[in-house]
Amino acid sequence: MRILILGGDGYLGWPTAMRFSARGHEVSVVDNFSRRRWHVEHSTDSLTPIGSLTDRIEAWREVSGNEIKPFVGSMEDFGFLDAVIAETLPETIVHYGEQPSAPYSMKSREAAVETQYTNVIGTLNLLFAIRDRVPDCHLVKLGTMGEYGTPDIDIEEGFIEIEHKGRRDTLPFPKLPGSLYHLSKVHDSHNIHFACRIWGLRATDLNQGVVYGIETDESARDERLITRFDYDEYFGTVLNRFCVQAVIGHPLTVYGEGGQTRGFLNIRDTLQCVELAVANPAELGEFRVFNQFTEQFSVAELAELVRRAGAEVGLEVAVKRFPNPRIEAESHYYNAANTKLRELGLEPHHLGEELVRSMLGIIARHRERVIERAILPRTRWKPGELVAQVPPPRQATASTAELE
Amino acid sequence: MRILILGGDGYLGWPTAMRFSARGHEVSVVDNFSRRRWHVEHSTDSLTPIGSLTDRIEAWREVSGNEIKPFVGSMEDFGFLDAVIAETLPETIVHYGEQPSAPYSMKSREAAVETQYTNVIGTLNLLFAIRDRVPDCHLVKLGTMGEYGTPDIDIEEGFIEIEHKGRRDTLPFPKLPGSLYHLSKVHDSHNIHFACRIWGLRATDLNQGVVYGIETDESARDERLITRFDYDEYFGTVLNRFCVQAVIGHPLTVYGEGGQTRGFLNIRDTLQCVELAVANPAELGEFRVFNQFTEQFSVAELAELVRRAGAEVGLEVAVKRFPNPRIEAESHYYNAANTKLRELGLEPHHLGEELVRSMLGIIARHRERVIERAILPRTRWKPGELVAQVPPPRQATASTAELE
Repeated sequence: MRILILGGDGYLGWPTAMRFSARGHEVSVVDNFSRRRWHVEHSTDSLTPIGSLTDRIEAWREVSGNEIKPFVGSMEDFGFLDAVIAETLPETIVHYGEQPSAPYSMKSREAAVETQYTNVIGTLNLLFAIRDRVPDCHLVKLGTMGEYGTPDIDIEEGFIEIEHKGRRDTLPFPKLPGSLYHLSKVHDSHNIHFACRIWGLRATDLNQGVVYGIETDESARDERLITRFDYDEYFGTVLNRFCVQAVIGHPLTVYGEGGQTRGFLNIRDTLQCVELAVANPAELGEFRVFNQFTEQFSVAELAELVRRAGAEVGLEVAVKRFPNPRIEAESHYYNAANTKLRELGLEPHHLGEELVRSMLGIIARHRERVIERAILPRTRWKPGELVAQVPPPRQATASTAELE
Repeated sequence: MRILILGGDGYLGWPTAMRFSARGHEVSVVDNFSRRRWHVEHSTDSLTPIGSLTDRIEAWREVSGNEIKPFVGSMEDFGFLDAVIAETLPETIVHYGEQPSAPYSMKSREAAVETQYTNVIGTLNLLFAIRDRVPDCHLVKLGTMGEYGTPDIDIEEGFIEIEHKGRRDTLPFPKLPGSLYHLSKVHDSHNIHFACRIWGLRATDLNQGVVYGIETDESARDERLITRFDYDEYFGTVLNRFCVQAVIGHPLTVYGEGGQTRGFLNIRDTLQCVELAVANPAELGEFRVFNQFTEQFSVAELAELVRRAGAEVGLEVAVKRFPNPRIEAESHYYNAANTKLRELGLEPHHLGEELVRSMLGIIARHRERVIERAILPRTRWKPGELVAQVPPPRQATASTAELE
């Protein structure tokens, strides 16, 4: 199958490209390296030392014998995007090509506009290119569970049947997104739904939970194939950041009460879910939504898990509550459906101490690359409301050698 | 009160500016004249011969003795918008400053991107300027009933209480917008709701129906104060277009079955609704949605009304079904709530033959300005699906003099 991966240089895009390439598909990737540029702008970096896209593609060719074809440019540039689609004629497009950070979108007006412009206009360009070049192509779009927010009812997969004043209809699930980034994904979902309803395109919107983990089957084949791993305020996600904090002896930064509950999944399950969506495509005209996570945890539960796993390998991990830089419920009802991907055959990797220990081990190998000042949040959802109390860094009391 | 009208040179913006000025408020207007530019690009024009913004402001000063202060620039230009808000320090902002046409948004990728960029990024800029300059300011935003689409349940005003699996919450009403323009308004609504939830701003989203009519109390005071009146494919709305067709002896262009039912209101009631929203502002942190229309009609009913009213003044009006250029249900359930503005005191001007006769009369006065080729739809929701059958223009069989 001809598969185009948008954002193919990213945390998930690169492992996804290798996965489909390993399965014998004809894989092309598009990236404009905005993630690398944002890191340069913030003087931060991936924990893992990743090569250039060209280096990684060469390493992958050496290891697997397979080609991945790169295209460098932005989806906002329609001429570029359209030319790539005309050349590659993809049967499936996996779309990770967006600004993916909530805190980044909240740090300034400029970043907010950049986020909504990049994500909404880039995806709109994509929909037109698909319509006019490859109308049968299956678009697999990465959305986020954060589109739903934390309503006081069960969260369904994209749609909900509503009975109201004696009538009944199945309608898009109402959205209460928690950041200007999450809003951009809500906008995308509405635009894609429209393209399916009106133009007859087909799409699967994967409302993904918070991803953790580093290694996949393909990246484990050669150290040059490792994917990026972000732990900074902007691009780090909570469990990944906690693991880095545990390794460097920094208290785990729980925001507020820590009762924020979300869906989570292992990076290996991201690949499994995307593979399942691609192998079982939406029908023409269908806009399908899968909630893509395997387990629900509260932030406090994750902190406790990392503390326990750390203790097993000799790390003394402190947990510290911080003033929450976000405006969000810190304790709330949360119960989200995630049956559709299971019905397609998803076999989850569950999160436990063993997985956390393995992450701690990989992180410890790159410990000297950790940039500590990048970890604490400086972006606040509501300016002027909060000054984060910054605790002094603390040394780990045990050697981390045993993690390696 | 200091009031800023965004889009103050437009069909509704200009009459709104005069209304608040007549009531003694300190009124400023912003416009970038994009509507005039779009008309130039399509070789179309307002039926009514409108003066420049400066001419109209001078005429208003002569007639009323009141000043309206103009600012020329685009909301997408944050530096401009921010400077205007810093200078005028509005207590209320009435926001009409968007690309308002569904067919325009569907005519090309470029127009779709322009629409979503102009509307979404312009409004996002506005929210940041309000947050940082005038956080207590009440934003009155013009949305559209078209955000809801035609669900098979009653349409409520912005929010709906959902009972689901034994739990209950009041959530944003699900949206099924029918064009990329309507989508831009849905995106706006989500962004504004967020700004109220997170930043504590206050806003009223006026989900307006289809507006008809030309004259308001203020525009009637001097012919130089008349507002624009569009009847072309892009910016004309259905009843206004039917009235122009009746006057020039063109068959009324009913798309498809004509069973499309929508909410409608007189331009005088638009002003009344906006005045009521301004006089009864939302609370800080509140995002309030009013459905702003007074009556529901199907397209076929409107055509019949114009036919009857035309007959009374000696016009023989033909009604002709056209292939629908839009993808929409041509016969559907429709029942939308509109009680909130009535509860605030709205006294509707109902649509009837008398009002239509008055419109026909005003149109007949400008009959020589009608550009016939601009009327029929060329933009199709789904390219390649439909070629509109263009009937030859037909002369009116009766003199229209009696309309004047």
